[in-house]
Amino acid sequence: MKIDFWFSIGSTYSYLTVMRLAEVAETSGVEFRWRPFNVRYVMIEQNNIPFKDKPVKSAYMWRDIERRAKRYSLTPQLPAPYPLPGLALANQIAIVGLENGWMEDYVRATYRRWFESGEAPGEEPNISSSLTEIGCDPREVLAAAQTQQAADDLQTATDEAMTLGVFGSPTFAVGQELFWGDDRLEDAIHWAKDNAS
Amino acid sequence: MKIDFWFSIGSTYSYLTVMRLAEVAETSGVEFRWRPFNVRYVMIEQNNIPFKDKPVKSAYMWRDIERRAKRYSLTPQLPAPYPLPGLALANQIAIVGLENGWMEDYVRATYRRWFESGEAPGEEPNISSSLTEIGCDPREVLAAAQTQQAADDLQTATDEAMTLGVFGSPTFAVGQELFWGDDRLEDAIHWAKDNAS
Repeated sequence: MKIDFWFSIGSTYSYLTVMRLAEVAETSGVEFRWRPFNVRYVMIEQNNIPFKDKPVKSAYMWRDIERRAKRYSLTPQLPAPYPLPGLALANQIAIVGLENGWMEDYVRATYRRWFESGEAPGEEPNISSSLTEIGCDPREVLAAAQTQQAADDLQTATDEAMTLGVFGSPTFAVGQELFWGDDRLEDAIHWAKDNAS
Repeated sequence: MKIDFWFSIGSTYSYLTVMRLAEVAETSGVEFRWRPFNVRYVMIEQNNIPFKDKPVKSAYMWRDIERRAKRYSLTPQLPAPYPLPGLALANQIAIVGLENGWMEDYVRATYRRWFESGEAPGEEPNISSSLTEIGCDPREVLAAAQTQQAADDLQTATDEAMTLGVFGSPTFAVGQELFWGDDRLEDAIHWAKDNAS
């Protein structure tokens, strides 16, 4: 069974999924295909701005993440920097990682620094520290991530997400069936198992 | 143990809670205090418009409700009429019912007609049919619900909700701790039990 995990580095709730997905995959026997896209592009296109200028809802969001992080034995320092000016670059690095086999490790490393040390992804020192930690050369990767090709590849993935009906991160896609939010991960797994042929 | 259940007739996801809460209360041993408020007032105040002019997110919302309704053995006809022009009146009727002991029955009846027969709450024929079904005189109740007093009482409840930090419906309040969304009901119950003195 396979589930597409659509995510953007820059989504706060996706922290919960990124940090627990490897274990969930092992426990459930489901294979997750990690699909980075640019959720900001989608949200602007769809006039769907969930937290900007919404202090009451934002305060709830951090408290909700704090409570759910505890359930997964995560220890974030909240609030983390938000929103991320470097969202596009952070995800272009993920796109480069996808082609080179270290994407998941990078995403976990950059999220951990973001939520546990307050370092914003897509900016220094997070970029170089995360890449060094997983054994990559930051200069090489940054050069590749800042090309038109990497930008185009991220846009292609984003267009694919939009065609599928994805509007937020994280989204779990089981065929055409979408489940939005870390709190729908278990539903997506049940759906995949119930509909496995 | 007591949990305040803040809701607005007019909220789509609140359908799931309204239809299952009596059973959940019995099973869990938790007492729920039903608190109608005007979520539209709060959302406009906070510039938090979740579905208007967002067709992709709205389509997902209906599909998500459909899947979750099935889990609770509910059989809605979707999409239901949305948004509700009569939102304020529908909740002012609930306010009148709160003082007269039939509020929960009315809320269930008006939601059932909304989601199962496509009749919008706060409008005819839903108002009269729902009130008649629960043994009330629609003319009497409508007269009481359209007074300044009923409008003021709904606003007072709405102000109280906002002071507490409520920004959406349904919200479950366990003391100062808020849980937003039908999918957080079980979390709220666990919180209430873990923090019972």
